Amino acid sequence: MDIIVLRPGATAKELRYIVKKLENKGFKANISKGTERTVIGVIGDTSKITEDESNAFASMAGVEEIHRIIQPFKLASRDFKSGDTTIRIGKHTIGGKRIHVTAGPCAVENLPTLLNIAMEVKKAGATFIRGGAFKPRTSPYSFQGLGEEGLKFLAEAREKTGMPVVTELMDPRDIDVILKYADVIQIGTRNMQNFRLLSEVGSHDKPIVLKRGLSATIKDLLMAAEYIMAQGNNKVILCERGIRTFETATRNTLDLNAIPVLKKLSHLPVVVDPSHGAGKWDLVAPMAKAAIAAGADGLMIEVHPKPEEALSDGEQSLKPDKFKTLMKELKAVAKAVGRTL
Amino acid sequence: MDIIVLRPGATAKELRYIVKKLENKGFKANISKGTERTVIGVIGDTSKITEDESNAFASMAGVEEIHRIIQPFKLASRDFKSGDTTIRIGKHTIGGKRIHVTAGPCAVENLPTLLNIAMEVKKAGATFIRGGAFKPRTSPYSFQGLGEEGLKFLAEAREKTGMPVVTELMDPRDIDVILKYADVIQIGTRNMQNFRLLSEVGSHDKPIVLKRGLSATIKDLLMAAEYIMAQGNNKVILCERGIRTFETATRNTLDLNAIPVLKKLSHLPVVVDPSHGAGKWDLVAPMAKAAIAAGADGLMIEVHPKPEEALSDGEQSLKPDKFKTLMKELKAVAKAVGRTL
Amino acid sequence: MDIIVLRPGATAKELRYIVKKLENKGFKANISKGTERTVIGVIGDTSKITEDESNAFASMAGVEEIHRIIQPFKLASRDFKSGDTTIRIGKHTIGGKRIHVTAGPCAVENLPTLLNIAMEVKKAGATFIRGGAFKPRTSPYSFQGLGEEGLKFLAEAREKTGMPVVTELMDPRDIDVILKYADVIQIGTRNMQNFRLLSEVGSHDKPIVLKRGLSATIKDLLMAAEYIMAQGNNKVILCERGIRTFETATRNTLDLNAIPVLKKLSHLPVVVDPSHGAGKWDLVAPMAKAAIAAGADGLMIEVHPKPEEALSDGEQSLKPDKFKTLMKELKAVAKAVGRTL
Amino acid sequence: MDIIVLRPGATAKELRYIVKKLENKGFKANISKGTERTVIGVIGDTSKITEDESNAFASMAGVEEIHRIIQPFKLASRDFKSGDTTIRIGKHTIGGKRIHVTAGPCAVENLPTLLNIAMEVKKAGATFIRGGAFKPRTSPYSFQGLGEEGLKFLAEAREKTGMPVVTELMDPRDIDVILKYADVIQIGTRNMQNFRLLSEVGSHDKPIVLKRGLSATIKDLLMAAEYIMAQGNNKVILCERGIRTFETATRNTLDLNAIPVLKKLSHLPVVVDPSHGAGKWDLVAPMAKAAIAAGADGLMIEVHPKPEEALSDGEQSLKPDKFKTLMKELKAVAKAVGRTL
Repeated sequence: MDIIVLRPGATAKELRYIVKKLENKGFKANISKGTERTVIGVIGDTSKITEDESNAFASMAGVEEIHRIIQPFKLASRDFKSGDTTIRIGKHTIGGKRIHVTAGPCAVENLPTLLNIAMEVKKAGATFIRGGAFKPRTSPYSFQGLGEEGLKFLAEAREKTGMPVVTELMDPRDIDVILKYADVIQIGTRNMQNFRLLSEVGSHDKPIVLKRGLSATIKDLLMAAEYIMAQGNNKVILCERGIRTFETATRNTLDLNAIPVLKKLSHLPVVVDPSHGAGKWDLVAPMAKAAIAAGADGLMIEVHPKPEEALSDGEQSLKPDKFKTLMKELKAVAKAVGRTL
Repeated sequence: MDIIVLRPGATAKELRYIVKKLENKGFKANISKGTERTVIGVIGDTSKITEDESNAFASMAGVEEIHRIIQPFKLASRDFKSGDTTIRIGKHTIGGKRIHVTAGPCAVENLPTLLNIAMEVKKAGATFIRGGAFKPRTSPYSFQGLGEEGLKFLAEAREKTGMPVVTELMDPRDIDVILKYADVIQIGTRNMQNFRLLSEVGSHDKPIVLKRGLSATIKDLLMAAEYIMAQGNNKVILCERGIRTFETATRNTLDLNAIPVLKKLSHLPVVVDPSHGAGKWDLVAPMAKAAIAAGADGLMIEVHPKPEEALSDGEQSLKPDKFKTLMKELKAVAKAVGRTL
Repeated sequence: MDIIVLRPGATAKELRYIVKKLENKGFKANISKGTERTVIGVIGDTSKITEDESNAFASMAGVEEIHRIIQPFKLASRDFKSGDTTIRIGKHTIGGKRIHVTAGPCAVENLPTLLNIAMEVKKAGATFIRGGAFKPRTSPYSFQGLGEEGLKFLAEAREKTGMPVVTELMDPRDIDVILKYADVIQIGTRNMQNFRLLSEVGSHDKPIVLKRGLSATIKDLLMAAEYIMAQGNNKVILCERGIRTFETATRNTLDLNAIPVLKKLSHLPVVVDPSHGAGKWDLVAPMAKAAIAAGADGLMIEVHPKPEEALSDGEQSLKPDKFKTLMKELKAVAKAVGRTL
Repeated sequence: MDIIVLRPGATAKELRYIVKKLENKGFKANISKGTERTVIGVIGDTSKITEDESNAFASMAGVEEIHRIIQPFKLASRDFKSGDTTIRIGKHTIGGKRIHVTAGPCAVENLPTLLNIAMEVKKAGATFIRGGAFKPRTSPYSFQGLGEEGLKFLAEAREKTGMPVVTELMDPRDIDVILKYADVIQIGTRNMQNFRLLSEVGSHDKPIVLKRGLSATIKDLLMAAEYIMAQGNNKVILCERGIRTFETATRNTLDLNAIPVLKKLSHLPVVVDPSHGAGKWDLVAPMAKAAIAAGADGLMIEVHPKPEEALSDGEQSLKPDKFKTLMKELKAVAKAVGRTL
């Protein structure tokens, strides 16, 4: 069901043209003449009307605006699947009662540092290891990551600790090498609407962490998930990591409202990255606790033993001892909302 | 200490003019010639440089930009007072270990409904009653509040329940009648930069809840608090209630990041209004829990027995039984972060 | 006509309840059962449904969302009055073929400076003089204006030059003194939703320049105009002056899109303030020209002979010679779009 | 020159550590002890300090914040090259006195329609033809473009009209086929921070139109240009096409302030896309005129003979006759600001 609102002075001829176009597409038109406007209710499976077709109707003579009633995403919606999706990765389940914490450095820098971090975060209770081998950096002069060598280090960290590996894919040309080493593929904020990359990862059977874009609405995020799912891959984990607003006191505005809204609109698991979201290490702990209280299924947290020497994002990384303290606090909050961690 | 950056081609004459102006105001100029830019460090008590004076320097020939090092707020800052401010209201203390919940209808509608709500929320654990008698409505055709009659009803609810009254002041001409009935004066979102109103409430000895404006940065909020404090009233409670962003799935974007940031920059107590922040009743519970996990000192929650008949903001009000359930959950989260409620 | 969309599982009982409520209010319900959702078309004069009543419907059991078809403003809308409103002030007409430029200092500082500016801008072609006597400043420590003395200076400038005076009202308690001296009352950005102030100026017969709030949507601006007009004062001039976005390279983001959108939705004249909008003097000229090309009916421009000594907003003020050059350029652009200046 | 501000209680040891780190990297530290803060001026070529290194300093004990004085982009900056860059494409020059208009359909749909549009827009004065063969669509169910077939049609339109072809590259795997047919490669909004794609087009000698991302600051846009230029390709044309704000009356907020700001910070040509920026055809004309008045070097405008049957973005396309009228108006505005078209 879509609603087409006509302009005040729309003519009978304009109305007939629109109704005929609707009927040609197999819809029925329910016309209501109000006191100020005439409104056409479109009856039929309007979820099949693409955005393009809807825009075409919006440009017809006599049309003031279109109200779409059905969300443009289908496979990702609660309408399509009412129960929560859970995703099995190794021996862990994302989206169930247990909250999972993914931890690690922003970028993989060298093997000893990575192994050291991996062992520290595992001891503290993290269940997944993260680290970037291909890094999307806003400056061409910044460290761009170690590439496949970084992936090998991650695989070694997995072997040593048993923790599955989460790492980012930036370029469809790297899909094979990423598939070889990763347990979960991360699609980063700046690639959330890189539709070719979304289609690429949608055609493989590997779980995806899909990060919300800096200016992506919640619906945009779900449409990006739809791109992946439309290719057959239903293992999508949504990740809130901060949006761009006028506020400059924080690097981004971590939007925790997205958690309950996503849970209402979609069946997919939702995790939160408070490190990128807030951008400063001393905001990570309060926002991580808040995320769990708001219903997140997991967290992604940056940990580095020497943030002042990190090759990227040092400003937002926790030291291992601070991470350990945080994990204890998170356990208490998780328990308070009926979850475990 | 302020920093004045000169344009690449700034002349010696322009530099001398700026230095002389600084010296005339009693400052010393520390000139550093870098490889690309010349930079002037302003030595002295630059907190006394007003925004106007700073802008005047910015408009001088040869100046590229000014970096201000010291925050423009003083009395509200942690630099000025390092310990947390606590505010005593009746037998309660805001800003201490105990988290306080203020509850009530958006607008006071009639006495029986108000008393009913007051007793229900008290039973559930709320410690302050709220309700609007003067309502800032975006439409001139919407219900504007009962005025003094509404204040009398609030006073009666206080008498019946012992709960102090929080209510909004919209117009400096209403200050006397508000002072007569209110225990805490609320300055609403749309008046956060109504500087005359801020000065007015600053010259009385009544606690103030100051709500963040829809497009106010955290620094703007602290400058508004400074306006009140500059008149002598230090009893300011800061309230996060949602900012305006591009996201349309929620009425506003409740910015919980503001809690730890405000706690870092200021000594004032911080409370959160998840009802206005998210704008839909089913988001109130998760965001209320998240606010406490993030370190809020209190919450303001709208409660109405029949939201579908409320004269304002029905969409975001909780029914008393949902509020009761929420209060139990909030107690658990408060305990998990070392607080009581 | 409003549209009420029901949730997928809404019951027949819920539907009946909603229909009965609509009928009680004198509306007819047109029910369409689509393949995925049931939708109720509300027939009757739905412009009388207040935001409150609409929210109350939104909170009823079974309701997913409400789509409002009719704009919430009436008197300010093109639906209500299709021809352009023109406002006569002294010998000038705002909203006609001629574009008017209001110029002057941000704040009135002293009589000689004001007279000097007034004569300079008149010579260059400005037709109105502006200057603040009551200044809304974000810092309590900044210059707050000369008060009534400033108004007297403005009146003297009017006497010397014949230019009508535009000045800001910040507080309803100042209405009498402002009415005594001003030809046009400015309602500033931070007071755009100070509803008491809007009602106050609505009950007098003086033209109003209403500045768009930093986070006000175009509809919010028109609702603020509606507040004034609902009291009987139809002489409202809308002013775009920049909105708050994530961009930090400019003080605000001057939103010129607002010009054609306001012209489409409303019959009221539209002016632009590029000085506050962009916040830097070297952006004023290009944005002023762009505003006229986009269809603005007037401009408000800050001019100061010594911006580096101005008591407020020096950074965004033009010197008289730059203003003179700009006026020549503006004349050429006005002519190119079929206007005069 | 960068500025490191220390926290109020920073210790002498912390200061020494920071100074030593700076000296290790070859910089000199100029220490100023103000009355409230100690500030370190970093002397040397700080443009070589990457964002990573800067963040690492920000995370050192005792540091409150870092102020960067030098812009993070170099090759794209006016500091690096003070004169305007002009780009020769066929017989046309972008960035000179003449303003160029690129026109065409959003997506290439079929050959006859494309040729028809090409001939119409050429007749009206357009000098470049645009059309998408690979389309970034927010829905996986929308028309995705004709691929290489669409490129062939564009090449045929070029042959018939002599107009160079502008078309979008979405995926680095398509670079060869795009290079084969395109005269100018467009990098779309959603790929502005697809760093691999930027590097790819940077390593070829083809002019690039780089569209500003929906949430990209002006500095982000210049950093994206830097990515391309760092690989050796200096032929970058910057394109403003609307940013995401809270305003919902327009699809995006076309930010014309970006034109003078980009012209101040960079030597690269700047064009504007009012079709995507405003999102509705009746806003295209006023915003196109405003863009030229503000100093744009070119425009990109969508034209379609039957917008109501267009396969994408019909709502924002002009019909050929409206485009023709607009071109005449644009010529007048161009002349008024000393340009030709």
